[in-house]
Amino acid sequence: MLQRFVLALALSLPSAALVAQDAPAARIASPDGRITVEVVTDHDGRARYSIARDGKPVIVSSQLGFLFTDVAKLDRNLRIASQATRSHDATWEQPWGERRHVRDHHNELRVGLVETNGDQRRFDVVFRVFDDGIGFRYVFPEQPALRRLNIAEELTEFTLATDATAWWIPALEWNRKEYVYKRTALAEVGFAQTPMTLRRDDGLHIAFHEAALADYSAMNLVRVEDRRFRAQLFPGTDAAKVERDAPFATPWRVVLLSDDAAGLATSDLVLNLNEPNALGDVSWVKPMKYLGIWWEMHLDTKSWGSGTKHGATTEDTIRYIDFAAQHGFGGVLVEGWNIGWDGDWFANGEEFSFTEAYPDFDIEKVTAHARERGVTLIGHHETSGHAAHYERQLPDALDLYERLGVAAIKTGYVADGGQAKVRDDDGNLRYAWHEGQAMSRHHIKVVTEAAKRRISINPHEPIKDSGLRRTYPNWVTREGARGMEYNAWGQPPNPPGHEATLVFTRMLDGPFDFTPGLFSMKSRHGDRVATTLAKQLALYVVLYSPLQMAIDLPEEYEAKPDAFRFIKDVPADWEDSRVLNGEVGEFVTFARKDRHSDDWYLGAVTDGEARTLHVSLGFLDAGRRYTAQVYRDGPNAGWQANQTDIVIEERDVTSGDSLELALAPGGGQAIRFIAR
Amino acid sequence: MLQRFVLALALSLPSAALVAQDAPAARIASPDGRITVEVVTDHDGRARYSIARDGKPVIVSSQLGFLFTDVAKLDRNLRIASQATRSHDATWEQPWGERRHVRDHHNELRVGLVETNGDQRRFDVVFRVFDDGIGFRYVFPEQPALRRLNIAEELTEFTLATDATAWWIPALEWNRKEYVYKRTALAEVGFAQTPMTLRRDDGLHIAFHEAALADYSAMNLVRVEDRRFRAQLFPGTDAAKVERDAPFATPWRVVLLSDDAAGLATSDLVLNLNEPNALGDVSWVKPMKYLGIWWEMHLDTKSWGSGTKHGATTEDTIRYIDFAAQHGFGGVLVEGWNIGWDGDWFANGEEFSFTEAYPDFDIEKVTAHARERGVTLIGHHETSGHAAHYERQLPDALDLYERLGVAAIKTGYVADGGQAKVRDDDGNLRYAWHEGQAMSRHHIKVVTEAAKRRISINPHEPIKDSGLRRTYPNWVTREGARGMEYNAWGQPPNPPGHEATLVFTRMLDGPFDFTPGLFSMKSRHGDRVATTLAKQLALYVVLYSPLQMAIDLPEEYEAKPDAFRFIKDVPADWEDSRVLNGEVGEFVTFARKDRHSDDWYLGAVTDGEARTLHVSLGFLDAGRRYTAQVYRDGPNAGWQANQTDIVIEERDVTSGDSLELALAPGGGQAIRFIAR
Repeated sequence: MLQRFVLALALSLPSAALVAQDAPAARIASPDGRITVEVVTDHDGRARYSIARDGKPVIVSSQLGFLFTDVAKLDRNLRIASQATRSHDATWEQPWGERRHVRDHHNELRVGLVETNGDQRRFDVVFRVFDDGIGFRYVFPEQPALRRLNIAEELTEFTLATDATAWWIPALEWNRKEYVYKRTALAEVGFAQTPMTLRRDDGLHIAFHEAALADYSAMNLVRVEDRRFRAQLFPGTDAAKVERDAPFATPWRVVLLSDDAAGLATSDLVLNLNEPNALGDVSWVKPMKYLGIWWEMHLDTKSWGSGTKHGATTEDTIRYIDFAAQHGFGGVLVEGWNIGWDGDWFANGEEFSFTEAYPDFDIEKVTAHARERGVTLIGHHETSGHAAHYERQLPDALDLYERLGVAAIKTGYVADGGQAKVRDDDGNLRYAWHEGQAMSRHHIKVVTEAAKRRISINPHEPIKDSGLRRTYPNWVTREGARGMEYNAWGQPPNPPGHEATLVFTRMLDGPFDFTPGLFSMKSRHGDRVATTLAKQLALYVVLYSPLQMAIDLPEEYEAKPDAFRFIKDVPADWEDSRVLNGEVGEFVTFARKDRHSDDWYLGAVTDGEARTLHVSLGFLDAGRRYTAQVYRDGPNAGWQANQTDIVIEERDVTSGDSLELALAPGGGQAIRFIAR
Repeated sequence: MLQRFVLALALSLPSAALVAQDAPAARIASPDGRITVEVVTDHDGRARYSIARDGKPVIVSSQLGFLFTDVAKLDRNLRIASQATRSHDATWEQPWGERRHVRDHHNELRVGLVETNGDQRRFDVVFRVFDDGIGFRYVFPEQPALRRLNIAEELTEFTLATDATAWWIPALEWNRKEYVYKRTALAEVGFAQTPMTLRRDDGLHIAFHEAALADYSAMNLVRVEDRRFRAQLFPGTDAAKVERDAPFATPWRVVLLSDDAAGLATSDLVLNLNEPNALGDVSWVKPMKYLGIWWEMHLDTKSWGSGTKHGATTEDTIRYIDFAAQHGFGGVLVEGWNIGWDGDWFANGEEFSFTEAYPDFDIEKVTAHARERGVTLIGHHETSGHAAHYERQLPDALDLYERLGVAAIKTGYVADGGQAKVRDDDGNLRYAWHEGQAMSRHHIKVVTEAAKRRISINPHEPIKDSGLRRTYPNWVTREGARGMEYNAWGQPPNPPGHEATLVFTRMLDGPFDFTPGLFSMKSRHGDRVATTLAKQLALYVVLYSPLQMAIDLPEEYEAKPDAFRFIKDVPADWEDSRVLNGEVGEFVTFARKDRHSDDWYLGAVTDGEARTLHVSLGFLDAGRRYTAQVYRDGPNAGWQANQTDIVIEERDVTSGDSLELALAPGGGQAIRFIAR
């Protein structure tokens, strides 16, 4: 069949055939010259790209293109009609984040592709090549033959040049990211979500993701055959998976490249591919640590719904607010405060009111008390995925919280393991996908409406993070992965290497509200959680989130005031972040500098293996003396041994010193470096 | 999240939860008791099935269910409300086929599933368990809460119990089945089309497919993770992949099971799951061998389009008709006879006229001459996938062929490697998929309209075969796989083991118009085709098709009259078919009995390896003497040695004899057993 195509092409389109034969290649290299990208058109006029690093192929000839529902697909008979390059090197400042200053240094290649037949439709592919990876996206200019794009599928391929080890989670349900990461051979990857992380035998680390996912459907990767992956977009609410009017640009397809795992975890590439802050003054976005009436529900000693076990009571909330104020926490999350939790809530979001509290929760009194104590209530809007129902109440719901001085809202989309509900352009209720175009629009609507009221948003079971926090800095974090809550249910609990995997996989897309700080270290069934006490402290440095929870009950913290001190001290906003060492799924050590003092913090975690890590303190300011407050696993510590055996000690150090970090099985170490 | 579900379920639906706990299991076994199927509902009320054979698990707990675009998905909160079993044992007669009499012996289990909440929606899952595998389908009864089903996805899973070796082709493009089969570990299967064939280490052979694919979208299998496959339906022309009104039944999901490869290739299970003949008298459907003005185009010595190289001329056609008549062929295919081939035909089906011939093709004269010589012109309708354009001309196009006495039409859907064009319910042109619901309807429309005019249909780049030839016996065959044409282009040619793979993979779904009989054995570039002359003869027995082509040019056959005799002798319709031996991708030997005489035919082919196969002639009628006309590879034969070295000899044999078949590398052997 293909052959007939070429035959007929040669017969009917000599000029095109000629162009296809002598198609020029477009090339670009990273600023350091190590990464090169090439775009060509093949004998069928298919546009293909490839990526090499240090001259070694990484992505081999992989297709670009689109299928549409109403016009011919755009993938053959293409020629490179234009190419333009530019260089960019600038540094911008984050209002909050892992580091204040972010350098955006890349070379850009814009390849103009034009059909050689029919309507001669045009699109550009823009590659941005950084020293730590590449991003590319499609840009559709205004043109008579493509006004409205009804995209049936994106034909973007990623064909790896070599085998590798892969860490990934399956695209198994329609709203779920809450999986334990799988480690398999590349050739055994199935249908994968992004970020997906690979390590080649030669040590090259590769991660696939996307950036600036806005008004578009999210991309999963299906391994079609061999080492060949193809993008598969989430369905839309109509025949097309994505409906857009030209001109428009797709999200960026991202390939991170690094000689080591650490290089992935410190990359700012995804942020750099997002648009700058669109919200103006965002000084009101306040990173903070918070407590919550939450773990009780997971332990099943309290309930979301009303009744004798109801967790969200005025009395308990005030107790939490007082505890938060006493210990310097910024907020208190209260789930189950509003009407709608009784009954089959996860299947029927229409029961939720976002303005009416249960009678035993006096929201006026609670928030007045919070304001008085300098603490904010962290609001909660569980929608069970009924975005349409939520959007109807959104203005009133946000106005209420604004009036009550609520600084942040945790939204939720627990949709019966399944679909979200939205309204299509005709106002009909349609079942949708959590990561489809309609939900992409929904989340941005919620975030921008909240921003008008100076409220930050932290969605649970959200659309994947793609760096949009740069554009919408009030979209602070997400509970979009397998967090601590799974340790409450214990079926199965998170494995010992879970956090050291998250750092190099899920965390590549942005902050994660993992909810660390478990001092009780037991599931509701009494099962051991795979951690030591020192590891729980280390997680505050290892797992970045500008809304950082202290998950456990106040009495648990009161029982261990020495260890609790680290949680009270550690900030949730950073001047700088470094990864000192790490291997995917095994161990990792972070050093981060407080954004509001000269203090540094260190966190190290390991998997089930005991490890001794040697780290230089060269990250500390030279010539400065620090008091290091060390929280380390004790001699009998271990997640299957003595989980609470911790040694807390102080010593003087300088940037010239190095430390030996002895981590117990399932353990960790946390250090505060107080500048003197 | 799941946990919250169970919590809330327990809180809100105690009775349902209780049912879910003590869910009864429904079970059924095959007539011989070796295969057992069990259906249960799990703690979430998910319906799950499993399959075992000889007590060993084959398919472990795998989900059943649906996603919809406009109502809540149907996959949880289910209980088994009813179960009924019945047994069936009957034999029916095929109007034509691999065997005249087909036994349908199975036990049936119908499981009624009802939601425990909401609208208490209902559906049945019907399992039919045969001695050589199972089929199951969903049946939606009439019910107020599910009148119109807009299916977003079918949640049917197939989770294998053990590792295996897999033979499969990727679901890579949207109309393509023309791939070389891949052999990989089960854990390395990507996104697969069906049939897909597996062999376990314990020798069990498993094949996945579907039956009775009508007014529904075809199913591919995506390996989501590990050994877990999930159905993924082809997209529709609206948000839903399938739109049906209840009551209706889905196609059957098929799992063939056999101790050896031969058992797969002789299974009638797929046919048995299809509905009986819906056309009444089909005595006019005539299996036949045919010639064609076709290979010349693939050799590029002639063209489909007009001009000096035009293949479809009155003169050449008459020459072919005379040759066909002289040698007893039933038909002559002529491609490129009609207006529309000039220009970008594969991208623009609207240029095709199905009633207007090129001026140098006098269709009246040609068909008159054909009728006179007792030969039929095999019509040709290449649509380039523009089903909507074709349907507009269909009545006139079919009327013309009926008037001219054309007995069969080869239709074609070469759609630029991409999409088909159909009209949606509102008459809008929509791009569709070759195996989506709209094209499923299109093919049945063409077949039934043709049947009214006593014309048979043989589509190229069709929807997959699923046994519908039983219901529509004029849907005789398909050119729906990688056929001989690829050997003309030689990039790459078919590998030596291709045919021995097709028998146990693609051919499991039905007849394939492979177009054997290549005597020239060279590509247009002069490359060797991976075959010997004897193998080309053997393919007439090995690869079943009721329309069986002799692909080569008349002069090639005139040059080798002795070998050509077998092609002239071999029938295209069978009383019975047996597989005497075989391994997937390596070798296979078929014995088939002529439907219109007492003669038997044997065909054996091997891959690149030379083999000596020992076969008993026990299939011959006992006590009868036969003259065996043997066409075997000569001493110097081999696809890389002397391709045309053939020994043709006769001997007397009876059913008590056994033969040694010596096959050269890439070779084969053909035998006619003439009853005396």
